[in-house]
Amino acid sequence: MNYFSKSKSELKEIEKQLLKEYNDYKDMGLALDLSRGKPNAEQLDLSLPMLDLLKNAENCKSEEGFDCRNYGICYGLPEAKRFFSSLTGIPCDNIIVSGNSSLNIMYDTLARAMLYGVVGSKRPWCREEKLKFLCPSPGYDRHFAVTESLGFELITVDMTKDGPDMDRVEALVKSDESIKGIWCVPKYSNPTGITYSDETVERLAKMETAAEDFRIFFDNAYAVHDFADEGDVLADIFECAKKYGHENRIFYFTSTSKITFPGAGISMFAASEENLEQIKPIIAVQTIGSDKLNQLRHVKFLQNKEAVYALMKEHGKIIASKFEILLGTLKNELEGLGIAEWTEPKGGYFTSLNVLDGCAKAVYDLCREAGVTLTKAGATFPYGKDPRDKNLRLAPTYASNDDLKLASKVLTCVVKLVCARKILAEN
Amino acid sequence: MNYFSKSKSELKEIEKQLLKEYNDYKDMGLALDLSRGKPNAEQLDLSLPMLDLLKNAENCKSEEGFDCRNYGICYGLPEAKRFFSSLTGIPCDNIIVSGNSSLNIMYDTLARAMLYGVVGSKRPWCREEKLKFLCPSPGYDRHFAVTESLGFELITVDMTKDGPDMDRVEALVKSDESIKGIWCVPKYSNPTGITYSDETVERLAKMETAAEDFRIFFDNAYAVHDFADEGDVLADIFECAKKYGHENRIFYFTSTSKITFPGAGISMFAASEENLEQIKPIIAVQTIGSDKLNQLRHVKFLQNKEAVYALMKEHGKIIASKFEILLGTLKNELEGLGIAEWTEPKGGYFTSLNVLDGCAKAVYDLCREAGVTLTKAGATFPYGKDPRDKNLRLAPTYASNDDLKLASKVLTCVVKLVCARKILAEN
Repeated sequence: MNYFSKSKSELKEIEKQLLKEYNDYKDMGLALDLSRGKPNAEQLDLSLPMLDLLKNAENCKSEEGFDCRNYGICYGLPEAKRFFSSLTGIPCDNIIVSGNSSLNIMYDTLARAMLYGVVGSKRPWCREEKLKFLCPSPGYDRHFAVTESLGFELITVDMTKDGPDMDRVEALVKSDESIKGIWCVPKYSNPTGITYSDETVERLAKMETAAEDFRIFFDNAYAVHDFADEGDVLADIFECAKKYGHENRIFYFTSTSKITFPGAGISMFAASEENLEQIKPIIAVQTIGSDKLNQLRHVKFLQNKEAVYALMKEHGKIIASKFEILLGTLKNELEGLGIAEWTEPKGGYFTSLNVLDGCAKAVYDLCREAGVTLTKAGATFPYGKDPRDKNLRLAPTYASNDDLKLASKVLTCVVKLVCARKILAEN
Repeated sequence: MNYFSKSKSELKEIEKQLLKEYNDYKDMGLALDLSRGKPNAEQLDLSLPMLDLLKNAENCKSEEGFDCRNYGICYGLPEAKRFFSSLTGIPCDNIIVSGNSSLNIMYDTLARAMLYGVVGSKRPWCREEKLKFLCPSPGYDRHFAVTESLGFELITVDMTKDGPDMDRVEALVKSDESIKGIWCVPKYSNPTGITYSDETVERLAKMETAAEDFRIFFDNAYAVHDFADEGDVLADIFECAKKYGHENRIFYFTSTSKITFPGAGISMFAASEENLEQIKPIIAVQTIGSDKLNQLRHVKFLQNKEAVYALMKEHGKIIASKFEILLGTLKNELEGLGIAEWTEPKGGYFTSLNVLDGCAKAVYDLCREAGVTLTKAGATFPYGKDPRDKNLRLAPTYASNDDLKLASKVLTCVVKLVCARKILAEN
């Protein structure tokens, strides 16, 4: 079955059949989309009861009796901190609860480091001659864009099934003082869907860094987002870092964007006490505080870890069916052909498809021409450039089941077509 | 009646009486507060109907059918832009609608200038040798704190009844390239309550600046916040700036913080097209977007300019009664004594009390000892230092009417006591 075992004439015949199939899809005038890592409407409906929980002056009060409609409480409601603490295991004192965008908090955290430095900095980062940032790839394009925008040189580090290639990470950070940090999506990583192994988390916490102010940007966006019955378990990086005396190294982020509403959730930032002592007075200059009514709404609706897990089970059912369609099609159509590999995540929003070297952009282009939008080839690498042009991010959650079925078929047809052509061209 | 016309023995007798009155207040064990520029609960109740306007999937959709629960629409909903446009007269294309804190937008706008520069900058502001910012004073302490935190030297410019002392502003900005901007609260200024005259607005728009990238941070926080029947009218600075080819000079901010809820409103930033072309791509890196459900809630509730004015009339009634109490007491107790002057605003949240030079801090301290909290003396000037120690910001809106009556009496007693002592000490 492997394309590489086939004769040239066999492959030519396959190519001909595939081209016919592809042209039939093209004639259908499709408009399908596998690019959007967004919850679908059915998922969003799960949180509708949250919207009218606040109705009168009395239930706009926090547990301490503070009127959340008014100014005040810059770092988040105590009950919102407790909620995120129950979800993450991080003590309330290390938590700040913010507005609807954890990406914004990450940007702010980096901008603050640029303008003021962090604990351990010799000077504000913007006064350094050279700044570099590690980008495990394939990874999240918006992360990379933040550091690129702020003037960092982006250094690609390969992702393995256990997380970033730690041999390389350790070697880089040990020798280069201008490397100030690393992006991590440690659980159900965007886009490969893998979860960092305990060893990876430990090595991140333990490693020696040339920069005294090195920071791990630990974006635990999918902390409770299992769709398999048994989800992955992520080690506690704060505990680990404490063990090695590196607790200042961790900047931790998560949000309810994919628990309640992506456009109207709440987010959380956690760091060591020493870090927060430096950061909090700056935040107090930056804002009078985030939207406390939305924090209150969330706490009343989500309640605690158990209730969140029950809600996530509902999300999981919906998402699992999407992944079954996509992964099932990949398996049926591509398994054993020797031209593609993909991950089978137990949670999160993405899977990552690797095709033959030099084929990803062609797959993206042909899919687009047939009306199927994928995340742009290259987007999962720094500067939008995949050095081997082989990775595609697939996001199955937003499309309807029918659309997803069809899009998956078009995608696998195109993968086969492009790869068959590549093999033919090289022989 | 003037204290300065009195004999020493008369003043001594007055001092004795005032001290007795003061000690009586002190014995009451009061806990009153005139420091908080916050709406009171009665005002917040006016916007309660907003809270449960969104209930189902259908009414979470924007007018264009976009599901506001989900990701997307980085610069604000079209209907939210149109709403702010109707309020301010600024075209929708020049508007970005954001989250609950316009102060945060101002901070971000300055941080962005530090990291990237603005249109016309030779380099990012953080790369300049020296940065200065004009601070019309008395002014808003949180404005001054933002520029202080970012490393600007703060230059005090006197406030007049028509706005900043424009002779001095013009002279400063014309000769000093390191002056990058000026803070303005142009209507019902915090804390003097005055509104910039048409001439002031025109001169701000027209003046020549040594820095090509000079910016006016125009924080129109009290744009529709009249409590008198006939409110002040503020000239359109965008129109003015356009006339002189200086439209890039204006960064304009406002919010619904004191229309709906201070803790959960929406805010707006406006600038020229050229400015927005530079800024928007950076914002798109910074965040996926602000809370669109809250934007939708606001637009559904506030509707348009006419509805907002009707709501502000209700706010105005409540606030007017507070100002009547405070200003009535000031008039009854202090008029004609030659020791104090104050403003009588037609809107906004503050009045500004000037006592004899060198007396403000003593008034603050004695009030505090009697259980009446004022905004800290000096807070209305850069670095918290009032060079003549004479200005006090008074915020009457948050206290109950009874508390306000009593606090006003304590305050005026203390002003008389401190000033009488000062005159005695100098004679």
